Amino acid sequence: MEQMNSRSNKKKVAVVGGGLVGALNACFFAKRGFDVEVFETREDIRQAKIVKGRSINLALSHRGRQALKHVGMEEKIVSQGIPMQARMIHSQDGKQSPIPYGKKGQYILSVDRANLNKQLLTAAETYPNTKLNFDYKLQDWSAETGQMTFVRSDGLEEQIKADLIVGCDGAFSAIRKQFLRRSRFNYSQTYIPHGYMELTMPPINGEFAMKPNYLHIWPRNTFMMIALPNLDKTFTCTLFMPFEEFEKITTGNEVIEFFQKYFSDAIPLIGVDTLKRDYFRLPAQAMVSVKCTPYHIGDKCVLMGDAAHAVVPFYGQGMNAGFEDCIVFEEVMEQFNEDFSAVLPEYTRVRVPDDHAVADLAMYNYVEMRAHVNSRWFLFRKRVDNLLHFLMPRTIIPLYTMVTFTRTRYHECVERWQWQNKVINYGLLVSATGLVLGGSYLLIKNPPDINKLIIPAEKMWNRLMALRTP
Amino acid sequence: MEQMNSRSNKKKVAVVGGGLVGALNACFFAKRGFDVEVFETREDIRQAKIVKGRSINLALSHRGRQALKHVGMEEKIVSQGIPMQARMIHSQDGKQSPIPYGKKGQYILSVDRANLNKQLLTAAETYPNTKLNFDYKLQDWSAETGQMTFVRSDGLEEQIKADLIVGCDGAFSAIRKQFLRRSRFNYSQTYIPHGYMELTMPPINGEFAMKPNYLHIWPRNTFMMIALPNLDKTFTCTLFMPFEEFEKITTGNEVIEFFQKYFSDAIPLIGVDTLKRDYFRLPAQAMVSVKCTPYHIGDKCVLMGDAAHAVVPFYGQGMNAGFEDCIVFEEVMEQFNEDFSAVLPEYTRVRVPDDHAVADLAMYNYVEMRAHVNSRWFLFRKRVDNLLHFLMPRTIIPLYTMVTFTRTRYHECVERWQWQNKVINYGLLVSATGLVLGGSYLLIKNPPDINKLIIPAEKMWNRLMALRTP
Repeated sequence: MEQMNSRSNKKKVAVVGGGLVGALNACFFAKRGFDVEVFETREDIRQAKIVKGRSINLALSHRGRQALKHVGMEEKIVSQGIPMQARMIHSQDGKQSPIPYGKKGQYILSVDRANLNKQLLTAAETYPNTKLNFDYKLQDWSAETGQMTFVRSDGLEEQIKADLIVGCDGAFSAIRKQFLRRSRFNYSQTYIPHGYMELTMPPINGEFAMKPNYLHIWPRNTFMMIALPNLDKTFTCTLFMPFEEFEKITTGNEVIEFFQKYFSDAIPLIGVDTLKRDYFRLPAQAMVSVKCTPYHIGDKCVLMGDAAHAVVPFYGQGMNAGFEDCIVFEEVMEQFNEDFSAVLPEYTRVRVPDDHAVADLAMYNYVEMRAHVNSRWFLFRKRVDNLLHFLMPRTIIPLYTMVTFTRTRYHECVERWQWQNKVINYGLLVSATGLVLGGSYLLIKNPPDINKLIIPAEKMWNRLMALRTP
Repeated sequence: MEQMNSRSNKKKVAVVGGGLVGALNACFFAKRGFDVEVFETREDIRQAKIVKGRSINLALSHRGRQALKHVGMEEKIVSQGIPMQARMIHSQDGKQSPIPYGKKGQYILSVDRANLNKQLLTAAETYPNTKLNFDYKLQDWSAETGQMTFVRSDGLEEQIKADLIVGCDGAFSAIRKQFLRRSRFNYSQTYIPHGYMELTMPPINGEFAMKPNYLHIWPRNTFMMIALPNLDKTFTCTLFMPFEEFEKITTGNEVIEFFQKYFSDAIPLIGVDTLKRDYFRLPAQAMVSVKCTPYHIGDKCVLMGDAAHAVVPFYGQGMNAGFEDCIVFEEVMEQFNEDFSAVLPEYTRVRVPDDHAVADLAMYNYVEMRAHVNSRWFLFRKRVDNLLHFLMPRTIIPLYTMVTFTRTRYHECVERWQWQNKVINYGLLVSATGLVLGGSYLLIKNPPDINKLIIPAEKMWNRLMALRTP
């Protein structure tokens, strides 16, 4: 590969897990000239007939794109994604109203998880210093020696010794289990009371059944549905609901009744029969948020991606944060000249606060997406934020913009957002008080003709409305 | 045993862990007539030469005593403990001042962990329907069938099948590991940055080196030392300090220098040579806080004690909460007529919020004990609380009193405390405002002779001081 690092580094890196972050990480390490081997428990998804588990599509945004760019993959992946420039809110009466994600031209991308994974594995394989191993189950490993034992599909054991073990084996990481046995490893796993279920909305007359360039949301307070477009003109709808609500629905007719009440506009689009059938195909899946620290043991093992920080899916940042891990690790490698004994502790030090912040943000959005988007105050504040961002683009930046369209460190996004909120709420309070006092004074001095007030008020309102896409 | 329940229940209960909560739990289940077996990994501490790990003494208070009472052990254990009626605060200049734990006559007890454990094991053994097994290491178990595999000291495996498996195997529970593999099990383990080290303060001329009926505290903001009395007239001093501070001290002379600066009054009492030697005997030990939910799997397994909720030791509630678990389980067993399929979910439902609350309280006291007890506002508020409790014993109850001297549910203690704080702080604000306004008015109307004010002020102050033990 022409970008391959000229340094001929003979150190061996074992990447455990060939999912999104594992495959991308293999590219990063290979590019630096390491001798890379990837070990994946499952078969090669490029040969797999059925891809099980995990969500079908994902939202790719700035952080993920920057990581893909580093290994020359950005353009290719972006060209296979569908831009979503706004949320499309479906109210219970079927009305649709968009809320843009950012400024004009800013969008997130709906990408196919399986396709992205395949592309990244193929990209990793093009490096001559990378070897992919599938059907390799991790049996045991030592953080002290870097020795690992795998059981292959032929039932035989294989010993591998690596200078660095990179645990990219997801939210239920096998590598992380050994971290848990050590003293002073902080760890939490929190399941939310909601489960999710995926339903497919087929094309109508060969075209998307709804406007494709949106992330469709049906917020219903305690639960919600979202839909992301796919390249084959289907939408993947995901229903998020407390497990006990899922369990209450036991017959096809109850499914239809439920949709009739809450998502009536989606019934003709998904189709009554499909809905009745697909609802019962798989049970609702659980969602877990995992936080831990430190991410490393000694100078031989490090956790990245979901293995280090699984997040709930409500900020669309799970994959993006995992991909950004690769860039941050790269930056620390550069800074400490690939000396693992310095790189690993520093990676923990810089990355943990950001991953914990994005986990908290995702949890926060879990409430915001299904409930707040229905509130007038929330919508008003979104508009105020966007307006202020338009007027003072460097001073006031909406949280969503910082998280999704910049590489501002996640924990700084949160700190800055808290500061902005204080300033803006204070400003609104002062303005409101000023308006009331000023207005009262004027009203007392010379009582106005009420009709004269209506027209300018309407004009102001319309102007404010027009600012929704500043 | 005469208190043995007349019901001849043939169901088998396997208690995994023969520590404090395991041994007490065996008594509870035996008393109800179950066929009880206890399985302990280590040897029988009644035969052990050296008892390793864990702290030497513990604070026993109301909740723990109530549980002991239930199995007829209260008097015996209390007679072997040393009452501590107050904290004794050692300031840096060597001054000592007591802060009572509650009203006159209310005290906590310093008890010896090893002795208490031995007594409880012996008590369990007196039930004919109880069998104790030592040197039994849990290899594998199934929550579905209740089947367990142990490896005995002779190297052979033994299969045991139980109707209920009770995991009382401590903060690093082997039983809990299988909970972690299941979906929707919420779990967190948090290590605090502090470690602890135990040092012995010998008797002087056959007598306690300090006043025995106190829990001695040397609060030093970022770190602290405490000392609890033992029956053999020694004190066990425990130094709590951030690990990196422990690591900074590498020679005997540095130990003495450090003590000279912060705990100078303790040097002659512990002895220079002992101090120089004992500081390096063992490395500082870590402290972990564990929270999880649910506590049960199906109708065959339940976690209790530290296995379910390890807490940091700063509220003296770890053992008391574990012992109270046994009473709560007993109450639920009574309520649901020993039907495990109803008892276990109900136990999780009622106990989790209380255990999470006590874990939070212990974490809060981790700050309070080493820092706040030095603050004037804190001491003032403690006095105000005690005074109000004296005046309105049912309306205002200090948090420490609720936690330590009642069985008010832990989570209700916290809620009530938050409410009281609001009321009291508001009251203080109103009183202060009133005093200032009233005072200003009087001063303006007739300026007083300043000397006339000093004597009544002094008198009032002295009266307030006398209220420290209301």
